[in-house]
Amino acid sequence: MKLGRVAGTVVSTISHPIYDGRRLLMCDLLSADGADTEDYLICVDAVGAGAGEVVLILDEGNGARQIVGDPDAPIRAVIVGIVDELLVDGSLHDVTGG
Amino acid sequence: MKLGRVAGTVVSTISHPIYDGRRLLMCDLLSADGADTEDYLICVDAVGAGAGEVVLILDEGNGARQIVGDPDAPIRAVIVGIVDELLVDGSLHDVTGG
Amino acid sequence: MKLGRVAGTVVSTISHPIYDGRRLLMCDLLSADGADTEDYLICVDAVGAGAGEVVLILDEGNGARQIVGDPDAPIRAVIVGIVDELLVDGSLHDVTGG
Amino acid sequence: MKLGRVAGTVVSTISHPIYDGRRLLMCDLLSADGADTEDYLICVDAVGAGAGEVVLILDEGNGARQIVGDPDAPIRAVIVGIVDELLVDGSLHDVTGG
Amino acid sequence: MKLGRVAGTVVSTISHPIYDGRRLLMCDLLSADGADTEDYLICVDAVGAGAGEVVLILDEGNGARQIVGDPDAPIRAVIVGIVDELLVDGSLHDVTGG
Repeated sequence: MKLGRVAGTVVSTISHPIYDGRRLLMCDLLSADGADTEDYLICVDAVGAGAGEVVLILDEGNGARQIVGDPDAPIRAVIVGIVDELLVDGSLHDVTGG
Repeated sequence: MKLGRVAGTVVSTISHPIYDGRRLLMCDLLSADGADTEDYLICVDAVGAGAGEVVLILDEGNGARQIVGDPDAPIRAVIVGIVDELLVDGSLHDVTGG
Repeated sequence: MKLGRVAGTVVSTISHPIYDGRRLLMCDLLSADGADTEDYLICVDAVGAGAGEVVLILDEGNGARQIVGDPDAPIRAVIVGIVDELLVDGSLHDVTGG
Repeated sequence: MKLGRVAGTVVSTISHPIYDGRRLLMCDLLSADGADTEDYLICVDAVGAGAGEVVLILDEGNGARQIVGDPDAPIRAVIVGIVDELLVDGSLHDVTGG
Repeated sequence: MKLGRVAGTVVSTISHPIYDGRRLLMCDLLSADGADTEDYLICVDAVGAGAGEVVLILDEGNGARQIVGDPDAPIRAVIVGIVDELLVDGSLHDVTGG
């Protein structure tokens, strides 16, 4: 999994029921210490993440389908958790967004 | 998923029925704020996207097979939606092509 | 899918029947306008592509297995078509090799 | 597989039973001779790896699901072994962390 | 598939029967003309490759599982062949290691 920070939302019509009522979140991918990188992923939100929050992104189709509970869902990247604490190389990084 | 902009079409004969009557679109991959990158993907069009439009690209085989409704299709990247609105870091990016 | 140009052949003994009588082609990966990049893929040839030709490469295991008609084949990258025409940003790129 | 070095832990609530009682480890990806790179992966720990140890990372969903013994687990990167010895280009690299 | 050169061995204990008695080889990834790159993969050896030899690497879970004959193996990168000859852009590259 990778770290991401919720940067915004993407509005699009996808004609598959798994996307009804689900938000697509633009997530900036972060480095190991929580800094921004140039890369991003557009993720299905499975946890109710808000703007600025640091999240865990699982980028794998079969696992993402398990998270949304639909073995046929056309989906790959999904937010599976909000990061509460990030302890890297002995120091605690503040990852509470806002 | 990633953002792409439809840049053109690729004409090729692929001897599998899933490609009969389907367009292959050359899509420039975009950054999180909608700017061009150097990378691209050739995608199967599932939504009727036109030149210049900003689209959502799902790049995963099993999900793509669900979108085209054929569990055996030799396919990986597919356009699943046209982006109507892109709200990143509090500002609305104009992604209407033309 | 990505664009590639057939640059040569790789001779190796792979002890799986799917490789009997099949050529492994060294393909340079191309940019969206058909220029060479530094990257490559070694692909199974499913279309009879020749040296210098521009081809479509599908780089996904399950799709590649469908192309060669063997659900158990140890294979990932396969040439699925020869590109006849590449129309990008309104101009036609000459991709006929030789 | 790739080499990683355990750099820390990530605390997050993931609502899937496979994550109950399992640690998520922040792993710096290493070069072939054991040096740090800029990249990382957040991995499920299947071997009891400790901070500073050099580990083997398998980054593939179906294989990871076998390691944790749950065919439906939403998981992709998993630590499958602690590296005891790394012999590259004829010299033994010290990979014992601490 | 990609080209690799066997650079060394990795010693680690992986608690899955598929790894009993199998060597894990550190393989430098090569460019299309056989030159070293900065990247590598740790591969399961399925052909008895020796140090310095140029090999074909298949980096795909389901195909790798077919090669080792275990549909549940936690495995992704596997050496499927030793390269006998590499003919690129009309010239034969010497890839016999030593």
